[in-house]
Amino acid sequence: MESSSGPAKKPAARSGGKPADKAPARAQVNNIKAEELLGRIIEIVRSQGLAGFSLDNLAPQLGTSSRMLVYYFGSKDELLGRIVYTLRNDIVTQLENEPVGTITDAVDRWWSHYQANPADMQFFFHLTSRSFEEPDKFQEFSSTAVGQWSAYFVRSLEGHVRSEQEAEAIARLVLATVRGLMADLLITADRQQAERSLAVFKELLEARLAASAKSL
Amino acid sequence: MESSSGPAKKPAARSGGKPADKAPARAQVNNIKAEELLGRIIEIVRSQGLAGFSLDNLAPQLGTSSRMLVYYFGSKDELLGRIVYTLRNDIVTQLENEPVGTITDAVDRWWSHYQANPADMQFFFHLTSRSFEEPDKFQEFSSTAVGQWSAYFVRSLEGHVRSEQEAEAIARLVLATVRGLMADLLITADRQQAERSLAVFKELLEARLAASAKSL
Repeated sequence: MESSSGPAKKPAARSGGKPADKAPARAQVNNIKAEELLGRIIEIVRSQGLAGFSLDNLAPQLGTSSRMLVYYFGSKDELLGRIVYTLRNDIVTQLENEPVGTITDAVDRWWSHYQANPADMQFFFHLTSRSFEEPDKFQEFSSTAVGQWSAYFVRSLEGHVRSEQEAEAIARLVLATVRGLMADLLITADRQQAERSLAVFKELLEARLAASAKSL
Repeated sequence: MESSSGPAKKPAARSGGKPADKAPARAQVNNIKAEELLGRIIEIVRSQGLAGFSLDNLAPQLGTSSRMLVYYFGSKDELLGRIVYTLRNDIVTQLENEPVGTITDAVDRWWSHYQANPADMQFFFHLTSRSFEEPDKFQEFSSTAVGQWSAYFVRSLEGHVRSEQEAEAIARLVLATVRGLMADLLITADRQQAERSLAVFKELLEARLAASAKSL
């Protein structure tokens, strides 16, 4: 079902090569309609998670058909991509508007958010896995999956470490670790154990920054 | 161990609940044949990775049909499960037979192994994602995905930390971090950056163990 359509015939042809064949006004209406649908889709999938996720399951809950969902969003994976980008942009933007705290504050904010929205993380791992299967289809995912969050963590490190390179290395370490622990939590459902490991990680980070502070 | 409930015995009763209708001798021949096929499959998929992985692609390379692969292994996901359990058992067993080193030695061994065999990690993330979609089908995966490796890391921590609970928390942190960094590497292909973050993580661990050593 994924390959059936490809993005090309959609109004907002993202990566397809075909020229848009709709009038601009029509495309705009389609975009508005798609945005509105996307908001409702996100509410539904966040409450239901990845289990049983399919256009066929989704369509009746939206009072539409899976054919219309393909028209607006392309394949299931393209829709999941839209969902992941939208959710990530929303939360990164929201957090960027909060006062910059320490790196452990940033870790806590990240963790609380995904702890409260585990489906967001399931979608992330789904796209990760799909990007290994069909790299060409998931270039947008691959090119943004790390950079957006690591830039957020870097902000909390500025002035606390010796170089930009060190900030980047720590930021990506933080992102990898919280994602890895969230994967552990989603797989094992052992929240206590995952949060013990998270607490150790924050201690390690704090010790590092305390040591760096002395040498700054 | 893990394969005991796997599809090995299978033609008969995988998920359908059908009673086994083959004589034991026949089942044994099937097991031997399946094991032999599995070895060849692992060689192929390790060199090709998850991209394009399907029973239809695999079968001709083995001189068999996808129908026969289903007969021996069940679905694509069941086969991937077999592959992941087999590969993980192999490497954990191999590493357990080496002298216990420090936790950073253990991290290096883990990293070198998956660095050299990125397909193994792709399969892991595929099963992770599939287990979110169909939890009931992937209980074996979920129940072993964390414990086997964390037990390996715990070994390197014995005598270096204050309690078993601390060892377990650090072990699971280590596993989450190396898996998260391997995901970063597979997604971004930025090995230098991933290894910088890994180096920082090893420094953090060493600092922690040095501090623990003083209080032991």
